[in-house]
Amino acid sequence: MRGDPGGRRAESPDPRRVARVALGRGAEFDLIRRFLGPETPLPQGVWVGPGDDALVLDDGLVLSSDLTVEGVHFRREWLSLVDVGYRAAAAALSDLAAMAAEPLAVLLSVAVGGDEPEREALEVQDGVRQASRAAGAEVLGGDLSRSPGPLVLDVVVVGRTSRPVLRTGGEAGDELWVTGWLGGSAGAVDLWSRGREPPEALQQAFRRPIPRIREALWLAGRLPLKALIDLSDGLGGDAGHLAAAGGVAVLLEEKAFPLHPALADAFPGIEERRGLALYGGEDYELLFAVPPGLVEAKAEEFTATFGIPLTRVGRMVAGEGVWKEGPQGEPIALKRGGFDHFEGGGGG
Amino acid sequence: MRGDPGGRRAESPDPRRVARVALGRGAEFDLIRRFLGPETPLPQGVWVGPGDDALVLDDGLVLSSDLTVEGVHFRREWLSLVDVGYRAAAAALSDLAAMAAEPLAVLLSVAVGGDEPEREALEVQDGVRQASRAAGAEVLGGDLSRSPGPLVLDVVVVGRTSRPVLRTGGEAGDELWVTGWLGGSAGAVDLWSRGREPPEALQQAFRRPIPRIREALWLAGRLPLKALIDLSDGLGGDAGHLAAAGGVAVLLEEKAFPLHPALADAFPGIEERRGLALYGGEDYELLFAVPPGLVEAKAEEFTATFGIPLTRVGRMVAGEGVWKEGPQGEPIALKRGGFDHFEGGGGG
Repeated sequence: MRGDPGGRRAESPDPRRVARVALGRGAEFDLIRRFLGPETPLPQGVWVGPGDDALVLDDGLVLSSDLTVEGVHFRREWLSLVDVGYRAAAAALSDLAAMAAEPLAVLLSVAVGGDEPEREALEVQDGVRQASRAAGAEVLGGDLSRSPGPLVLDVVVVGRTSRPVLRTGGEAGDELWVTGWLGGSAGAVDLWSRGREPPEALQQAFRRPIPRIREALWLAGRLPLKALIDLSDGLGGDAGHLAAAGGVAVLLEEKAFPLHPALADAFPGIEERRGLALYGGEDYELLFAVPPGLVEAKAEEFTATFGIPLTRVGRMVAGEGVWKEGPQGEPIALKRGGFDHFEGGGGG
Repeated sequence: MRGDPGGRRAESPDPRRVARVALGRGAEFDLIRRFLGPETPLPQGVWVGPGDDALVLDDGLVLSSDLTVEGVHFRREWLSLVDVGYRAAAAALSDLAAMAAEPLAVLLSVAVGGDEPEREALEVQDGVRQASRAAGAEVLGGDLSRSPGPLVLDVVVVGRTSRPVLRTGGEAGDELWVTGWLGGSAGAVDLWSRGREPPEALQQAFRRPIPRIREALWLAGRLPLKALIDLSDGLGGDAGHLAAAGGVAVLLEEKAFPLHPALADAFPGIEERRGLALYGGEDYELLFAVPPGLVEAKAEEFTATFGIPLTRVGRMVAGEGVWKEGPQGEPIALKRGGFDHFEGGGGG
C-alpha cells in the first residue's frame, strides 16, 4: 500500500512546484494539517509550499520560523537566557540545513516578562546572534514586546539554495543515513525532569545544538540526496515525515543507531537509549535518503571534515509508516511518532 | 541642529544600500537600538537593514515580523480569536504597505494556551488567513506550540518591491500627509479600559485595521514619495521616526488632524481626540513626506478610489524631534513619543 499519493507530488502547472508535502502521524501534525487547510494551488512565485522544512520561493529564497516557549520547550533552571536564544536560533537554522540552503538573515521576535525585560531581551538576542553568526547569518530584524507570562521567541531564518532537497523524494530501496549522535538532548531533558544533573556533554547537546548547515551543503554537493529532513521530532517522528512525504515506509535498524556516547552511564539499558533517539527529539542532526551503496565511500572524509559519524540507520521499503526490525528481522510497527506538543505531556 | 547623521545614510560600499535607519525617542526604541547592537556592515544580498519598517533584500524581497501578546496588545474581552489573528496579520501587512511592497506570503507562529488549544489555534489562523487573502497573500508556513500563559502570535510577512520607499528620505520643506482617519483604535482601547462599550466604528478600527497596501502602491506610482511609514506608534511616535531617519524635525499642525468621526461623542474634548491620534497608535494609516504642492491635485482621485481622506498634517523643518504649532503658531516640543510598551503602563 502506498501512503498518501495525493500529497506526494506537485499538483500545480509547473512540474517543479511542490504544493503540499504530506506529514507523518501525531496529534500535532493532525493539527498542522487542519491548520494548513485544504490544499490550494500555490501562489505565483512559490516553489515549495507548506509541509516541508521550509518555504521556498521561485528564486531559491528559503524561509522558516521556529517558536520557543518557556515551560514548553525549556525551563529556566536548565538554560541561561543566552542559551535559550542560541538554542532557538540553532533549531530554526537547522530547517535551512534540512533544505540544503545557506543562511542569509535572521529575524527575532521576542516577548519578555519578568522584572528586567530589557536585560532578558538582550541576553536572548545575544544567543540568537551567536548561533546566527556561527552559521554565517546576521540578525537583521524582528519585533519586541513585553510578556505577562512566559518568555516566547520566534526565530525566522532566511536562506538561499539553487537546489532545495525536499522531504518528498525517497523511494523503496533507498538507504537512510543520519549525521552525528542521537538522543543526547532528550537524555539531558529526561535527567533534569527527574531532578538529576546530566553529564556536561548531554547538557551541551541540549543547550547548544549545531545546525548541520555545512554538513548538508557538503552532502548535497557529493551525493544524490533524494530526501532530507532535520531531526527535531525524534528519529521515529522525522522518519515518519519522510515516509509520508515519499509515499513509502521506513524500516529502521535499531542496532545501528549512533547513540550519544555520554548516554551510557545515566541510561544503562540499551532500549532506554534507543527510545531517546527514536522519541526524544531535538538532536538537529540530518536524516537523508540516498540510493544504496553510495555513502560508504564518502563517510570517512565526512567524519574527517566534521568530526561526527555518518551512520546508516535503515532503509525505505514499499508500504507506509515507520517500522523497526525485530529480533528475528521481522518488521515491528513503531508504536508512536516522535515528541508531540499536542499529545499531552510537557517538558522537553 | 541636525539629528543623528551617523545613522542616517548607508555606510556600505553600494550607495543604494541602507545599513541602519535611525529611530525616534522612547524607552522601547532605546531598547531596540541596544538590541540591534553596534552598526555593522550589511551582509551580501541585503538592500535595507534594521530600523526601517522591513528588511529588504537585493532582489526586492521584503520581510517583516509583528508580535502580538495577549494582555499586552489585546484582551480577550475585546476581541474574538479570529479578530486577534486578523488584527495581528493586518499590523504585519501594514509594514509591507510602509515599504510600498506587494504581499506574497505570510508565516504564522502561534503559541496557544487554555483548554482548547486546537480550536484556539485554528481560530487565530482563520483570522490571519482572512487578512492575508484580503491583501492578496496566502499563509504558507509557520510554527505552532502550546503556551502555559498568554496567547502569543508572530506574523511574518514576505513581499516584493522594485522600489522600496524608506523612512530616510524626508527633507526640510517636505509636506507630511496621512491617509484615512486617526485615533479610532486608541479610542476603542481607552473606552474598553474604562469599562465602557466603544461605538461599533471604533471597535472595528481596533479589530479590523486595513493595511494600506493598495493605497501605498497607488501613491508611490503617482507621487515622488520621499519617506513613508505606517502609523503603529501614534502620529507623534511615527513622525519621530521619520524625523530621526531623515535627520530633520517634524512640525505637526494639530488643527488639520483627520480625527476619526466616531470619536466625537465619547471624547467631546478636542485635545483628548488629538491626544489619541498623537499618542494612541495602531491606526495603521500611512504617513508620508513629499515635496510641497504635489498632493492636492491627487487627493480627490485618491478619496474617490479608496473612500478615505488624504490630509496634510504638517511639514519637515530643519532641526530634530517632533513639534506642534502652538496657538500663535509657535513650535511646542511634543512631550513624548507614541505608545511605548517598555515605558510602564499596559493595555492597548
